Amino acid sequence: MNVAITGGGGFLGRRLAKALLADPAVSRITLVDASEVEAFSQDRRLEIRRADLRDAGAARSVADGADTLFHLAAVVSGQAEAEFDLGMAVNVDATRSLLEAARAGNRRPKFLFTSSLAVFGPPLPEVVTEETAVHPRSSYGAQKAMGELLVCEFNRRGFVDGRVLRLPTVCVRPGRPNAAASSFVSSIIREPLNGEPANCPVGKDLELWLTSPKAVVANLVHGARLPDDALGEGRIVNLPGITVTVGEMIDSLARVAGHGASERITFKSDETVKRIVASWPARFDVTRALGLGFTRDSGFVSLVEDYLATEGRRAP
Amino acid sequence: MNVAITGGGGFLGRRLAKALLADPAVSRITLVDASEVEAFSQDRRLEIRRADLRDAGAARSVADGADTLFHLAAVVSGQAEAEFDLGMAVNVDATRSLLEAARAGNRRPKFLFTSSLAVFGPPLPEVVTEETAVHPRSSYGAQKAMGELLVCEFNRRGFVDGRVLRLPTVCVRPGRPNAAASSFVSSIIREPLNGEPANCPVGKDLELWLTSPKAVVANLVHGARLPDDALGEGRIVNLPGITVTVGEMIDSLARVAGHGASERITFKSDETVKRIVASWPARFDVTRALGLGFTRDSGFVSLVEDYLATEGRRAP
Repeated sequence: MNVAITGGGGFLGRRLAKALLADPAVSRITLVDASEVEAFSQDRRLEIRRADLRDAGAARSVADGADTLFHLAAVVSGQAEAEFDLGMAVNVDATRSLLEAARAGNRRPKFLFTSSLAVFGPPLPEVVTEETAVHPRSSYGAQKAMGELLVCEFNRRGFVDGRVLRLPTVCVRPGRPNAAASSFVSSIIREPLNGEPANCPVGKDLELWLTSPKAVVANLVHGARLPDDALGEGRIVNLPGITVTVGEMIDSLARVAGHGASERITFKSDETVKRIVASWPARFDVTRALGLGFTRDSGFVSLVEDYLATEGRRAP
Repeated sequence: MNVAITGGGGFLGRRLAKALLADPAVSRITLVDASEVEAFSQDRRLEIRRADLRDAGAARSVADGADTLFHLAAVVSGQAEAEFDLGMAVNVDATRSLLEAARAGNRRPKFLFTSSLAVFGPPLPEVVTEETAVHPRSSYGAQKAMGELLVCEFNRRGFVDGRVLRLPTVCVRPGRPNAAASSFVSSIIREPLNGEPANCPVGKDLELWLTSPKAVVANLVHGARLPDDALGEGRIVNLPGITVTVGEMIDSLARVAGHGASERITFKSDETVKRIVASWPARFDVTRALGLGFTRDSGFVSLVEDYLATEGRRAP
């Protein structure tokens, strides 16, 4: 298995690379990012490369030889809303460049594209499925929806073996807040666990659709390993998640880390974040994903524990 | 009203221009086409221009000054399937160029985009609505679905006042067969009416979702006249049509023009055409469109009569 991971410098990309390196069938991983990525493994199968996929030549050199591409590179939701043209260039044009590069070799490589619940928006049914129409209410969501259509069409034409996985909001992300509208979802857990203050820009009643990084990485690997005919003509899968309110998240935090932690959260409303995040669905029927063998977190506490374990810590 | 019509050399574009010229509020119509268009009116408000919208400069000169754009230009379904890259260039890239050109003036012009029932495909619900997920099974459908997302997103960002009308299959088109997979739908009526043979590549049981050119033109004009807030955030409308089987079409032809006409039809199957056309839905709930004031044909016979009237003929 000769793997390329774009946006590989992000924390999901690095975790995915580590998971794949544990598989002896993986002969090579090219981890590509637009930014400099610090080496995180001495494994000689791993090559870290800096490249801007908007350049067709760079896209070709990434796709060249790879039989499995994980296309994670993206401009996140808050930034795509603030910088429309940059979002189009990266989320749409670079996706198309990489698909064209993958098509060029006539080898029909696996092309795994990470999409998002952000393709959905009101009016929403009670429960979202793969048969729900996309109504994106953010540039990020619209751009991901275009990427989905590109991957599905390149698959249908036989140019790639395309798979689209729609991710729930990932929580708890390590590190610092980012430009995603959903950044607070991790901050309100991570910062208090680290003894720092965090702001929650939405109300406690807001429902979210969440997944742990651990489940996402397992599901990305599973998504690439699934046989082509298991998916059939429906190349899009809504990945499993859990439905939790912001209030339930904070209660869980207090249970795991004490009220001292949850009291570090302030509630200053942010209308831009609210508008985007509240347009996302929080209830899905993931019968299809579970039937295909994708995994689901057991509950919100396990998301907190996954974070602590990754950081080499135990619940305080 | 300063209007631009792209793909204006097609028969719908010309009929639309004629309909708009009847409105004294229309001060100017720029009719643009990639091919040469013969003058069909002496009205001095009409300018016919040859331009390739894939060129950003051409797109800008078309959008410049227009307050209402009808973007009809497209590579049709059969050709988009045969020439994938050409379909992407015209149906996706030129649509984006024109949207960018419309955005550049900061005037938020009306941008009316004609999409198609071809964005849908199996698995289909009993009845399709605007809440049905698109699953295109043709390059044309995939490209139109990307165009829809572009128009909706440019609308949401406030760059244009975007409206997407999804057309049923138009029947009876005048002239000669074209490269659309649905070309036979008009041929099996038009050619026998003209005393010529025609081939039907699908079975008589196949259900189709049809509209007359007359209803489409009325609905395009209506779609542009609708106030912005009548549409709200849902910028996509499935236009009304009628559900008819191929067998019922042929029976109607026989009723209007006699069995001599219907006996001119042969039935040589074509798998490519069948695969594409049979993936399209034939049953829609168009409550939304009718509520917005769009019109619907009374039945298939009226489609045949519309054709004969346009050709200056009466039923034989």
